[in-house]
Amino acid sequence: MEHRISLITLGCRDVALCAGFYEALRWKRVETQDGVVAFDLIGQTLGLYPLDKLAEDIGLPMEALGHGAMTIGHNLRDRPAVDDLMARAEAAGARILKPAAEVFWGGYHGYFCDPEGHIWEIAHNPFSPLRQDGAFRWNGYGDA
Amino acid sequence: MEHRISLITLGCRDVALCAGFYEALRWKRVETQDGVVAFDLIGQTLGLYPLDKLAEDIGLPMEALGHGAMTIGHNLRDRPAVDDLMARAEAAGARILKPAAEVFWGGYHGYFCDPEGHIWEIAHNPFSPLRQDGAFRWNGYGDA
Repeated sequence: MEHRISLITLGCRDVALCAGFYEALRWKRVETQDGVVAFDLIGQTLGLYPLDKLAEDIGLPMEALGHGAMTIGHNLRDRPAVDDLMARAEAAGARILKPAAEVFWGGYHGYFCDPEGHIWEIAHNPFSPLRQDGAFRWNGYGDA
Repeated sequence: MEHRISLITLGCRDVALCAGFYEALRWKRVETQDGVVAFDLIGQTLGLYPLDKLAEDIGLPMEALGHGAMTIGHNLRDRPAVDDLMARAEAAGARILKPAAEVFWGGYHGYFCDPEGHIWEIAHNPFSPLRQDGAFRWNGYGDA
């Protein structure tokens, strides 16, 4: 597992409200779809996503995520790497929340939580390939 | 507010247990002190910190942080920048959890949460100056 976090996702009951807050701090969102609002950062992306959809995506009740919910995303270069990491995490004591599978938006991902419940999404996103240095951009094709 | 996250902090009831999990995934910790375990990532650091100390640091009851607790850290180059950002966040609708103040480890920081409770630590850490590109390293002096 390389040392990187590709995405930090905030689960929001009201995405527009939260997005407005970060925009008031002069952050500029990037173009997105599917109800997500994203801000590219150094090396990774902060995403705001509806809490109910995030819970559905993970397969947990919304209450289990709670107020101030966040997940950490780790992206990989292909699907087998996702399978490998999910298996290694399970062997290391992770609880698998969602086995790796195709996602409606065209990617491939799974979720686990570490021994104390911090939730990780392990993903291959063919539309946002990792840059050579491993950095992630929302609409990031290669190193251009 | 520049587009970056310097630290992601996982609140852990058992830091050694969680650290062992990430080490089993082949992550290598960096040298730390004060009961924190840190892993440098691309552009930022993942820190594991005792949940009770994190709650005390923020000034919230431990139960308010809950299982799977995380905070996001945004580091700045000096103290006035911390004060400025805390004031702008409050004006934008943040709830101030801890006004900016000196910390026992020699830094200066405050906490706020966004309109839905996601917790941010805004800090100046004189021992880990930001690199020119804004990236953060746990023991990171300049761009060496």
